[in-house]
Amino acid sequence: MTTIPPCPALLADRFHTLRYDPEQDAVVLLDRRAYPFRTEFVVCRTVEETAVAIEHMVVQGGPPLAYAAGLGLALATPTPAGYRQAAARLLATRPTADDLHHLIPAALARALAALEAGADAKTAILDFVHGEIARGNRVSRACGEYAAGLLADGDRVLTHCFAGAALCWMLWIAKHQGKTIHLYATETRPYLQGARLTAQSAVEMGIRCTVITDGMPAHLMSQGMVDSFICAADRITGDGHITNKVGTLAIALAAHYHRVPFFVLGYDGPDPNTPTADGIPIEWRDGREVLYLAGQRVAVAGVDALYPAFDITPPHLITGIVTDRGIFPAPLIGRYPGT
Amino acid sequence: MTTIPPCPALLADRFHTLRYDPEQDAVVLLDRRAYPFRTEFVVCRTVEETAVAIEHMVVQGGPPLAYAAGLGLALATPTPAGYRQAAARLLATRPTADDLHHLIPAALARALAALEAGADAKTAILDFVHGEIARGNRVSRACGEYAAGLLADGDRVLTHCFAGAALCWMLWIAKHQGKTIHLYATETRPYLQGARLTAQSAVEMGIRCTVITDGMPAHLMSQGMVDSFICAADRITGDGHITNKVGTLAIALAAHYHRVPFFVLGYDGPDPNTPTADGIPIEWRDGREVLYLAGQRVAVAGVDALYPAFDITPPHLITGIVTDRGIFPAPLIGRYPGT
Repeated sequence: MTTIPPCPALLADRFHTLRYDPEQDAVVLLDRRAYPFRTEFVVCRTVEETAVAIEHMVVQGGPPLAYAAGLGLALATPTPAGYRQAAARLLATRPTADDLHHLIPAALARALAALEAGADAKTAILDFVHGEIARGNRVSRACGEYAAGLLADGDRVLTHCFAGAALCWMLWIAKHQGKTIHLYATETRPYLQGARLTAQSAVEMGIRCTVITDGMPAHLMSQGMVDSFICAADRITGDGHITNKVGTLAIALAAHYHRVPFFVLGYDGPDPNTPTADGIPIEWRDGREVLYLAGQRVAVAGVDALYPAFDITPPHLITGIVTDRGIFPAPLIGRYPGT
Repeated sequence: MTTIPPCPALLADRFHTLRYDPEQDAVVLLDRRAYPFRTEFVVCRTVEETAVAIEHMVVQGGPPLAYAAGLGLALATPTPAGYRQAAARLLATRPTADDLHHLIPAALARALAALEAGADAKTAILDFVHGEIARGNRVSRACGEYAAGLLADGDRVLTHCFAGAALCWMLWIAKHQGKTIHLYATETRPYLQGARLTAQSAVEMGIRCTVITDGMPAHLMSQGMVDSFICAADRITGDGHITNKVGTLAIALAAHYHRVPFFVLGYDGPDPNTPTADGIPIEWRDGREVLYLAGQRVAVAGVDALYPAFDITPPHLITGIVTDRGIFPAPLIGRYPGT
């Protein structure tokens, strides 16, 4: 890798936003619902509190919420039944992103093996999760570095929601390669991850960021104002479908129509357990989350609302999936090593 | 026309939302930025106040803002120079919708002719504008009736922004034809016309309405949850392009991809002065309007924003344009009578 200074975006390093605190015997999570307007940490003292925090979007993004759940498992009653029950509760929090559904069974296996061996299960869990966080940080940086190689000086890059640490590294490395990038961030209703998390990360790195509403990407593309669309994926199937924050499909369709390249930050590749899009469970969150913004009602009384949290984009709309092991055409993502 | 009771939606009749008040010698406009959370009227005592109210979105929608401007012309200094100056100021408020750019020159001509004939110019303007409002109401109802004929019992109709009086009439007439319609309304950031104006109109008519964010239409279509997409147009070109609230193009692309019919409520047809899309001026509003919601900052400091108010959808994405004179394939909209 090239010599790049540490990325100044807080969200580029997951150790900065979630941790197990031995003094409180608690999981401490940056509240991503309030950040960056308020930098507050939520203290979860039980498995249930951790699960509720994940359900309530204190932490978002496939890998970070998986790490939070993994740390939460360490709070379980230290018996085989206690860990199994806690794992089931944590797995039930969010269905769509695959990281959670890999990490928790693996962490549970470590805990049960430790109990079996008469070792400390909590330490086994924490060692494993900390290792996963460190690995995830390396994956993010490697993925971001491959993605930076796709960018040219002066590029105007559109992104949607918050594409996580790999997006930060992509922008930071491109900057240190002497490329000036102009980022367009969709605000990403209802939680405004784009206007808050993506925009804040860009500001921290000194990258110019322009916020647009979720309905504007197609128009900007029609005006020749977008050189590429780059977002993350909460799950990638073996045949190259991606699921990501709702709104991604519409932007992918607009990019395809306007011949704007669409790259997916694919981190550590496809989910080996999801060969096709039929296997992706799409989370439907409470529609009332759409009716409010920062506690303020935005729609009239007498209506209801829907909140599908994700949508699915097929491989023929994707120019390439960028991973820590290189860039793959979407239909060939099954060739990612180890899939 | 079938016998249908008066439409109970306030916004179905423009006389209910904008008027000239002779006692105050002022134009009185329903503030559509606050409605329906607050039903407030803005009193404009001068041409300049009327122009600023239009610029600040007190009134929105192609025909209503044209009517407001027309009433505002009646407040001008009653000399040829006074009316010409006022007309220029009012024409400069909003560039994209064509109604304003037809109505103001016509009203100005009436005023100048009245002055020439020694008649009362203000009365000439008001008579003309009131006639236009009455004509617009008839157009809306006729357009809505043709559109209602396209709907089947049980249809789930997606709309974007607020498609105006014709949308109200479409839903109301369909209801009285015994059809149960479920309306999906995009919230339509940044002004939330969907979550406020469309949703409120549906509630007033007893039509079920579900609010979604602007990023969700493609996903709902992918799930087979949308039977048609129906919106209005701020301007229709002679070759069948439409311009409408930004976000329309993305939904039209998603509808085309998912084979969902897309109908445009075209009111009184194309703009005879705009043969092709090259002639449509797209308004760029102040980007800061995107950074706030109801006065609350939604994006971090250090970023900028863009607000293209409209986008352009080409005719091959449109299933049909519904007017007061029937339904036209988009490429044949030039056959609208009188174009």
